[in-house]
Amino acid sequence: MGDRTERAGSATRGRIVDATAALLRRRGYDGTGVKQIAREADATLGSVYHFFPEGKEQLAVAALRRDSEHYTELLRVALSSSDDPAEAVAACALLLADRLRESDWRDGCLVAAAALENVGRSPTIQAAWKESLATWQEQIAARLRACDVPAEVADDTACTVLSTLEGAEILSRITADDKPLRTAAGYLGPLVTTVCPAR
Amino acid sequence: MGDRTERAGSATRGRIVDATAALLRRRGYDGTGVKQIAREADATLGSVYHFFPEGKEQLAVAALRRDSEHYTELLRVALSSSDDPAEAVAACALLLADRLRESDWRDGCLVAAAALENVGRSPTIQAAWKESLATWQEQIAARLRACDVPAEVADDTACTVLSTLEGAEILSRITADDKPLRTAAGYLGPLVTTVCPAR
Repeated sequence: MGDRTERAGSATRGRIVDATAALLRRRGYDGTGVKQIAREADATLGSVYHFFPEGKEQLAVAALRRDSEHYTELLRVALSSSDDPAEAVAACALLLADRLRESDWRDGCLVAAAALENVGRSPTIQAAWKESLATWQEQIAARLRACDVPAEVADDTACTVLSTLEGAEILSRITADDKPLRTAAGYLGPLVTTVCPAR
Repeated sequence: MGDRTERAGSATRGRIVDATAALLRRRGYDGTGVKQIAREADATLGSVYHFFPEGKEQLAVAALRRDSEHYTELLRVALSSSDDPAEAVAACALLLADRLRESDWRDGCLVAAAALENVGRSPTIQAAWKESLATWQEQIAARLRACDVPAEVADDTACTVLSTLEGAEILSRITADDKPLRTAAGYLGPLVTTVCPAR
């Protein structure tokens, strides 16, 4: 019985985080209210504050973190999809293109949708994003170091790969066309090849 | 007298567009209201509707267009700053880094701040952005064609350069550090060199 209550609680929490992410995407941080989150999650306001006593900022950080985990998993799958590091990095852009197309251009990274209006306003949200960006950059850098790319070069290359992925995702969403991501894939592969020592 | 009235009107319109851009950056589209724009612009609600009878959407498009012109001008200056196309493209990232640092990481491209929450919601805003992106991509592509890069390669390269610039700008804003833009500059130069026929 305790287990079932716990599972129900966890499902409610999940719905609340889903609703928060969806609203942040559609309406931005300032356009999203806690009451509205409760309504869309089919939860009571009391249960929203039970899970997230600090309110909207805490809800936003939870949504950003969950989103960030999806992105981390996507990078993990893509980066392990080929023995060739150039192909593996290009696969990140291609997999992102597939995912965006399947979601009808809605399911993009929350970095751009919700974080930017908060830059300089919410240190908590900004810190959550810096942490995500550092995680993703390290995932790409680790894949490059595994091919004997020196650590500093791997970091710089990973930073630029991540910039290109984020930017191409934004261009793809705005144009509702996966061409920017697919085109980027064609450049990211050769970029990685130039920094990888020949084997 | 008519001239003076016209100049005063134009100044008011300018203040209204400035206030709209500032609010969109700080609070996003849904978090911004017409009354608030009037207040921040030190204008009456009547004069806001005089210049922008269609209200918030029209105000947002005007702010995005003005912002877009700044970006176009920045690219124009950077792309004509060197005879070497690789240096000229790298200069885009470096100039953007300077501008962002000077504005204390606030003065970024409105693409990311306000457009994404509207993707799929406001066709007017989405169209304004597609137009801006096309303008910027064409500026970069034209610079490459001038160095005898074939048109299709120039378009694809310009698309990826623009993705990298937008993404690196977002990473720089979130981390309040111009390193992502400066690092990108170091990769964009060589990327352009690989597509430019040797002279």
